[in-house]
Amino acid sequence: MKHLSKLILFFPLLLLSFANPPKKVKVIFFGDSITQAGVQPNGYILKLDSIIKQSHLPNEIELAGAGISGNKVYDLYLRMEEDVLAKHPDIVIIYVGINDVWHKASSGTGTDADKFEKFYRAIIKKLQDKNIKVILCTPSVIGERNDNSNQQDGDLNNYSNIIRRIAKDLALPVIDLRNAFAGYLKVNNPANAEKGILTSDRVHLNEKGNLLVANEMWTVLQQMVK
Amino acid sequence: MKHLSKLILFFPLLLLSFANPPKKVKVIFFGDSITQAGVQPNGYILKLDSIIKQSHLPNEIELAGAGISGNKVYDLYLRMEEDVLAKHPDIVIIYVGINDVWHKASSGTGTDADKFEKFYRAIIKKLQDKNIKVILCTPSVIGERNDNSNQQDGDLNNYSNIIRRIAKDLALPVIDLRNAFAGYLKVNNPANAEKGILTSDRVHLNEKGNLLVANEMWTVLQQMVK
Amino acid sequence: MKHLSKLILFFPLLLLSFANPPKKVKVIFFGDSITQAGVQPNGYILKLDSIIKQSHLPNEIELAGAGISGNKVYDLYLRMEEDVLAKHPDIVIIYVGINDVWHKASSGTGTDADKFEKFYRAIIKKLQDKNIKVILCTPSVIGERNDNSNQQDGDLNNYSNIIRRIAKDLALPVIDLRNAFAGYLKVNNPANAEKGILTSDRVHLNEKGNLLVANEMWTVLQQMVK
Amino acid sequence: MKHLSKLILFFPLLLLSFANPPKKVKVIFFGDSITQAGVQPNGYILKLDSIIKQSHLPNEIELAGAGISGNKVYDLYLRMEEDVLAKHPDIVIIYVGINDVWHKASSGTGTDADKFEKFYRAIIKKLQDKNIKVILCTPSVIGERNDNSNQQDGDLNNYSNIIRRIAKDLALPVIDLRNAFAGYLKVNNPANAEKGILTSDRVHLNEKGNLLVANEMWTVLQQMVK
Repeated sequence: MKHLSKLILFFPLLLLSFANPPKKVKVIFFGDSITQAGVQPNGYILKLDSIIKQSHLPNEIELAGAGISGNKVYDLYLRMEEDVLAKHPDIVIIYVGINDVWHKASSGTGTDADKFEKFYRAIIKKLQDKNIKVILCTPSVIGERNDNSNQQDGDLNNYSNIIRRIAKDLALPVIDLRNAFAGYLKVNNPANAEKGILTSDRVHLNEKGNLLVANEMWTVLQQMVK
Repeated sequence: MKHLSKLILFFPLLLLSFANPPKKVKVIFFGDSITQAGVQPNGYILKLDSIIKQSHLPNEIELAGAGISGNKVYDLYLRMEEDVLAKHPDIVIIYVGINDVWHKASSGTGTDADKFEKFYRAIIKKLQDKNIKVILCTPSVIGERNDNSNQQDGDLNNYSNIIRRIAKDLALPVIDLRNAFAGYLKVNNPANAEKGILTSDRVHLNEKGNLLVANEMWTVLQQMVK
Repeated sequence: MKHLSKLILFFPLLLLSFANPPKKVKVIFFGDSITQAGVQPNGYILKLDSIIKQSHLPNEIELAGAGISGNKVYDLYLRMEEDVLAKHPDIVIIYVGINDVWHKASSGTGTDADKFEKFYRAIIKKLQDKNIKVILCTPSVIGERNDNSNQQDGDLNNYSNIIRRIAKDLALPVIDLRNAFAGYLKVNNPANAEKGILTSDRVHLNEKGNLLVANEMWTVLQQMVK
Repeated sequence: MKHLSKLILFFPLLLLSFANPPKKVKVIFFGDSITQAGVQPNGYILKLDSIIKQSHLPNEIELAGAGISGNKVYDLYLRMEEDVLAKHPDIVIIYVGINDVWHKASSGTGTDADKFEKFYRAIIKKLQDKNIKVILCTPSVIGERNDNSNQQDGDLNNYSNIIRRIAKDLALPVIDLRNAFAGYLKVNNPANAEKGILTSDRVHLNEKGNLLVANEMWTVLQQMVK
């Protein structure tokens, strides 16, 4: 009887184990139009999903996009409750900064460097208060010339430095897209073209750009879920 | 005996009255450098305080400044928990918009009209969620010429229209400083000077400007506390 | 004898008249994309040509466009030798200023007011040095809202004031398009739309806009050729 | 007779030589506020004059400043007849471009890259038409950080590339200040400060900056007058 009862008790647990597979790690990508396009075919989020499917962790990570075209750091802050916190992610990857720099010249509505940092830190704090892990990204490119002669290169380098400094301060992982793009373009843009290597229009990623971002993200992300 | 008992009953009430005077209505002024200067001598908040002291409500209203130089609407949103909600005001007067317009030209970091409205409404919502009454102000001036030829006049008129529309939508009182300044300058700026009538530098208020703002505010504020 | 001599005197003049028809007054329109489009079907220059053909001066005025998209006042100055002086006009109508104002916000490359005036006066001087008559135009619109709430209204009003002041200083005729558009839109834009009344896109003229400009120009131009 | 005739021929030449000492080579520095300050004590033009006085050519070169604060390339073009051509220089050193880039962000009134090139070439052409030799300079710095993270670094690099390309096209000497400053700051700005190494305020030269410019200029200038 004793053994039987044990067996009886054991079975339901086993069944339960089958019925409730281990909860997946939920990753939300929080950003602008590049991230909005990331869930399109060939987008970096779908590409990353394919990479994961073929990795040693095929069933353990769930990806979701939260990108909106034109967003700057303060737009993320404004909508983070609804678009991120309400979805209870385990990890949030923040990929923002291009519009903060770009809109200075294109409409006079960019973001000052000191305020960029303030809002960026405020977003991180709100995420960490909910025990969400945070990964930062430096902004990729506005123009693909590889000799630091794109109009916004200086400013993008500055905002990337700010993000790297925040990452260091808070001991957070950073996916250094700015660096990765620069390295790739040094080798693969011999004609010093403005676009067409990793972007279609100087900013938005073509398929190679999306793949580069997916690979860079996977390198960092797998450290956090293994 | 009768008289005595009355006296006995009366005393505790009197003591109570001394111990717990009627709670004052707490008004916070939430804005930029103009509001930051509002608590300086000759500032509009001190002037309003003097006006109130001489009114029929000398002891019922308490004023507090929450202005920070350079602030735009999203800066108010970022710091409102700490600087406003934590202080439990009864009424908040929002006076913002000048930097949102001005910084477009002066540093490329103004605020797009649609985002101005979004953050403005988000601030109001957070205040109303705490049962705080809200009063809106239209932005005063960037330049005092009275023929609509100051560089930012069109944009200030547009942002004022946005604020008036929000006020109408939400049935909130609005202190129409834009209108009040225009009316005053029509009469009192015959030489069509850029500054020196109500401002010292095209934006920041001189004593007359502070007095005008204080009077405009009192007209609306007394409706809410009488 | 008397009659004969008259006849003799008369004949050579008649012959001369056939051999050398009265030289037409040559008018060049010097400006930006609005003027570049002015020589297209429905463009204001073609419309003005039709008006002239039906006037009391059908054969006395010759019109030529010299508009290039994106031009600001200093672009006109740079290319005026080749595009205007080399063509020996009798009258030049200058219609510029919209890009000088607009490009401040759209690319950070507008023209400061003081430099706008300097180059404007330098163009006039070069034309007058060649005995060319000059007619000035105030810039029409960037946005058609009629309550002075288009972003650039203040600046356009300011640059219009500059042009009016130059015209007064130098006793030159001015075609006040800014004024004419404002008057028209006050009456014909009851919904306060941003575009679609006189422009297709807030700036470039639709057929009604081209007709309005042609009519305004004719009113001034015929004073100079009658 | 033979000797005498030689002597006779010789004397007038000798007298002529005494009466008309060898004409000095006149060099005009054509630029903005940096050049305007160049003729002040410690300014780069005075420093260059000192360097020349101690060189092998102490009496052969005459320097004159033609710098005006706030000037962009089109301002040089506008005033070049009066301020440069009228003074009959032998050599003109053009040092412009900082305001063309800087004013994009600070007032929305910078110069588009294509128009910068157009006016730059137009200035050179007018100088060469008068047989004046032209030396170009790349723009120095807006901010002294040495990791390409000053806001305008990308744009300054782009405008420097334009100037280098013009110089190559027209086989003109170029004083590459952009390069010289970068090299110096790499070594001498270990704290990556924004200012205080070669400038007082990120743009205007301190004594070391003026000396660096003077030395760079002398290296190129002496090639043209030796």
